[in-house]
Amino acid sequence: MVSRSRLTEDQIAERLAAAPGWSRSDESITKTYEAPSFMDDIAFVRDVAEVTESRNHHPDIDIRYNRVTLALLTHYQGGQTAWEFDVAKAIDAF
Amino acid sequence: MVSRSRLTEDQIAERLAAAPGWSRSDESITKTYEAPSFMDDIAFVRDVAEVTESRNHHPDIDIRYNRVTLALLTHYQGGQTAWEFDVAKAIDAF
Repeated sequence: MVSRSRLTEDQIAERLAAAPGWSRSDESITKTYEAPSFMDDIAFVRDVAEVTESRNHHPDIDIRYNRVTLALLTHYQGGQTAWEFDVAKAIDAF
Repeated sequence: MVSRSRLTEDQIAERLAAAPGWSRSDESITKTYEAPSFMDDIAFVRDVAEVTESRNHHPDIDIRYNRVTLALLTHYQGGQTAWEFDVAKAIDAF
């Protein structure tokens, strides 16, 4: 079980450093992916959904032609937790 | 071949009236769909993508848990054309 307690600033910095392409906002961590085509985006989104569903997380997903932006929201705790970073890592691992 | 010429205001009003749930903004026509779950959203988005790809249109797609918002942009002509309304109709027909 991944902790849903808020991370400290140092812990967030450490986890961001280990999550290439992810950046932090007040309410989420986000990353934009580029695919060869719109239909490749759609296939990517399907894979992301399977990974995140299995972790009970539901990222905000914005599809813009051949780009997909994922936002892992922190609305449960009002700040980053290990949970979002675990999901981000899983997304980038498949 | 669906016309990509700009519609008149009257033509837009007529087509909007025939496209339930769609609304107009300066740059697009949009509609928000609600699904039973996040994974149902994903399946819906895959179907939408197939319909729109076959018409060479690539809507902006925002997934927010169990809601999907589609925006059919009019950036080619700077205003609504028959093309977007044809795509909207096709999306709602499947």
